[in-house]
Amino acid sequence: MTGAEALIRTLLAGGVDTCFTNPGTSEVHMVAALDRIGEMRCVPGLFEGVVTAAADGYARMAEKPACTLLHLGPGFANGIANLHNARRAHVPMVNVIGQHATHHLRHDTPLSGGIESIARPYSRWLRTSRGASMAGRDTAEAITAARSASGQIATLIVPADVSWSEGGSVPPFPPPPEAEMPGPEMVQRASAMLCSGLRTAILLAGNALYGKGLEHAGRVAAATGAKLLAPYPLSRLQRGAGLPAVERVHYILEQAKQQLEEFRQLILVGAQAPVAYFAYPGKDSTLTPAECEIFTLAISDQDCAGAMEALAALLPGARQPEETPARPALPEGAITLSGLASTIGALLPENAIVVDESMTSGRGIMAATQTAPPHDWLGNTGGSIGIAMPLAVGAAVACPDRHVVCLSADGSGMYTLQALWTMAREGLRITTVIFANRAYAVLKREFSYLNIGSPGQLASSLFDIGRPDLDWVRLAQGLGIPGTKVTSLDEFANALRNGFESGGPTLIEVPL
Amino acid sequence: MTGAEALIRTLLAGGVDTCFTNPGTSEVHMVAALDRIGEMRCVPGLFEGVVTAAADGYARMAEKPACTLLHLGPGFANGIANLHNARRAHVPMVNVIGQHATHHLRHDTPLSGGIESIARPYSRWLRTSRGASMAGRDTAEAITAARSASGQIATLIVPADVSWSEGGSVPPFPPPPEAEMPGPEMVQRASAMLCSGLRTAILLAGNALYGKGLEHAGRVAAATGAKLLAPYPLSRLQRGAGLPAVERVHYILEQAKQQLEEFRQLILVGAQAPVAYFAYPGKDSTLTPAECEIFTLAISDQDCAGAMEALAALLPGARQPEETPARPALPEGAITLSGLASTIGALLPENAIVVDESMTSGRGIMAATQTAPPHDWLGNTGGSIGIAMPLAVGAAVACPDRHVVCLSADGSGMYTLQALWTMAREGLRITTVIFANRAYAVLKREFSYLNIGSPGQLASSLFDIGRPDLDWVRLAQGLGIPGTKVTSLDEFANALRNGFESGGPTLIEVPL
Repeated sequence: MTGAEALIRTLLAGGVDTCFTNPGTSEVHMVAALDRIGEMRCVPGLFEGVVTAAADGYARMAEKPACTLLHLGPGFANGIANLHNARRAHVPMVNVIGQHATHHLRHDTPLSGGIESIARPYSRWLRTSRGASMAGRDTAEAITAARSASGQIATLIVPADVSWSEGGSVPPFPPPPEAEMPGPEMVQRASAMLCSGLRTAILLAGNALYGKGLEHAGRVAAATGAKLLAPYPLSRLQRGAGLPAVERVHYILEQAKQQLEEFRQLILVGAQAPVAYFAYPGKDSTLTPAECEIFTLAISDQDCAGAMEALAALLPGARQPEETPARPALPEGAITLSGLASTIGALLPENAIVVDESMTSGRGIMAATQTAPPHDWLGNTGGSIGIAMPLAVGAAVACPDRHVVCLSADGSGMYTLQALWTMAREGLRITTVIFANRAYAVLKREFSYLNIGSPGQLASSLFDIGRPDLDWVRLAQGLGIPGTKVTSLDEFANALRNGFESGGPTLIEVPL
Repeated sequence: MTGAEALIRTLLAGGVDTCFTNPGTSEVHMVAALDRIGEMRCVPGLFEGVVTAAADGYARMAEKPACTLLHLGPGFANGIANLHNARRAHVPMVNVIGQHATHHLRHDTPLSGGIESIARPYSRWLRTSRGASMAGRDTAEAITAARSASGQIATLIVPADVSWSEGGSVPPFPPPPEAEMPGPEMVQRASAMLCSGLRTAILLAGNALYGKGLEHAGRVAAATGAKLLAPYPLSRLQRGAGLPAVERVHYILEQAKQQLEEFRQLILVGAQAPVAYFAYPGKDSTLTPAECEIFTLAISDQDCAGAMEALAALLPGARQPEETPARPALPEGAITLSGLASTIGALLPENAIVVDESMTSGRGIMAATQTAPPHDWLGNTGGSIGIAMPLAVGAAVACPDRHVVCLSADGSGMYTLQALWTMAREGLRITTVIFANRAYAVLKREFSYLNIGSPGQLASSLFDIGRPDLDWVRLAQGLGIPGTKVTSLDEFANALRNGFESGGPTLIEVPL
């Protein structure tokens, strides 16, 4: 058994059966081994930023790692931006990066350089495999690391000679450790805070935002009147009619401060204390009032759902309010942001997965979908734009029976539009909506905060991504996906319906 | 004067007057300063891989640095792959990367993380500016570093508070140091080798491959019968009718070994000793015969053109052979790779700039253009694919009066297709040819070296980038560029002519 075969068989033995990849020359031995073994589902991307975000989306929905197979330094580097987002999402992931043969490295050939240095900031576990006989064990350790805590990124660098040499084997390896629970005194303390009568919020993250974790959180809120919050950069939130209401902390500093000003206690469950995305001259980055006590019940590495279960067990049972909320009515007429939001709210299929990178165009969509049938909401966790379309790819691969609705700003979408091709190749059930405002609108808003008037010609030219306008319908068609441009809310509703009914990928461009 | 203003005014004072950029929120103060000052030419890219390769192409042709303005960690990370190529091209470049305000960093907000760690491998000079009063001096040192030796990458990280605070100034700074010359004993030694009667080649790089450097190299070759060689990963080579013939070292290991086997002496001028791109089991990575003496006349940091001038001065004058070579005849009929190469050879405009990432489809094009009118040839220096289209952007910005012919493989082109939009926006005179073989053909060839038969279904699915076929005409149109698909050599010739005559960007898809 070669090192490459040992690696792949160990991945399969560890439950890692899906590989997002863009292999290069140094990974050919790995591809040959994948070919021989044949049991790994391989999903290609035409750019590595697609590969890493797809592995992130897969992990968020499958709750287990996919692996990536990436081409040494530069190929990996192309995947960093979305790996940055994945790291902030606390997902499990195993990256396999090819490397030159060990004896070839001294020649400093063109593709050599810097893999470990650039991989380290994004990898909780990082190793270069030192021989075919170690490849299986290294892979097993990578899987265990990836599945530890709430989920981590593990990166294994595999020199070509480790891949091609004989002597590999698949080691036995223990099941991954359960995520650690916060101690009982921590749960007691949180319970006491919740019963103190002070206005309290619980800021949830990780697996406290969906499934059993969210159920327990709903019980805690019903029993105590505490407000449930999610961070603005959220990984996965289950929501919709009948589910506990969780409010997302606002993106804009002033709005977030206002939202949080009533609270005197904030309990963190897997989340960091809320701070502004960016600093501004003379403004404080902290979003909570000075008199708000912040208590960390669980850090992101701990079992957030378990923490909420333990907390709920200490509190009296309470009936959650029966809600029979109505969806928004289907609006008609000219395109407006609120009209688009209501249309999505009116038509969102049950059990959909919404991937949201709609940026400034989509601020009303969460409110409009609050009463839609239950669905999962995946966000941009690290602020690096260009996550939506490939994240949707991974979510759709993990959940082939669910509708994925991918909401993307046009500027963000241009970062990883190659993902559309993977959607087409894999026949994924994804309806992509492009909000085409032809601008980096978020930069215009940031400029307005400077209080120096309107942007001049040069600044405008950098904020504006028209001239020429991007034609997303042609881009989609060029990548193998049917696309349509809509000019009214009625057309948008029809295009959404057609997308959901098509059973495959479609794209809707909404000029704003 | 704010730190941002000091930075920009120092760049302008140092002759850096072109900025390739994709700014983000943390760079808004810098954009505002650019706006106020108004003297910097700013060329936007919709993705940072476009930005860094454009700065590389600009530097190769302008022989001075452009600056880039990039968005903290992830934005910079998107530019790494082409920065890797630029580092290998030994070009001057000044990267300016925004960073969170200094006091904001402790909050570990979503976009934080790892800039220095990922910037270091690609930056010969790296610094984080510590205050507005230091911004001008830091920038001056960055420019000096970038212009030192043959050209280096300098990276300056600028926290937002350094940008927005008052107290900046533009320092006086000395002209950059001249690149160091090899000592006279080194030149003497090379001269003695060339006069020894042993079969000798000179492997040239840097500025020995164009302009005065190439002229001197031609004189040395004419006087001694030495063969002039260029590395396969070449930065810039001036070539064509009447210019000294320089042969590129072959990419394929066996071919390169055969090409070099006759030589008993190899003189390196700015180049590394030739080695295989990749290692193979049981094969030596070294390309020169064991009995070949390798002598380094100049390293890449030294003045390669000056070294050739000094060498030529020691050798007797000799007339270079008068060549009156004929261009290839314009072929007709069905599309073949040799027919495409001859068509380019027959039609290439005088003083064109050819950017070549045609990969396996373009192996015959250098031979077919050897007798075309003089032109510059820019290659992929680091092996990270996705350089051609943005490199062409930078070359066209540096040389607006010249025709740029961009030859791109389809798989490579998909990495940075966003560059087409910048071509459209800036109205650049670039004719892009896409060789659409719908495969990572280089990987198929590498697989064939494994001697394990044909790729199976899984490997084939990773080497094949059809299903669905990319439609480059629609992609070009979607990005604002007229595109045409050709199905015969006649149509290809017409499309090339139309491209050259249009005065703006066009794209030609050649299905293979």
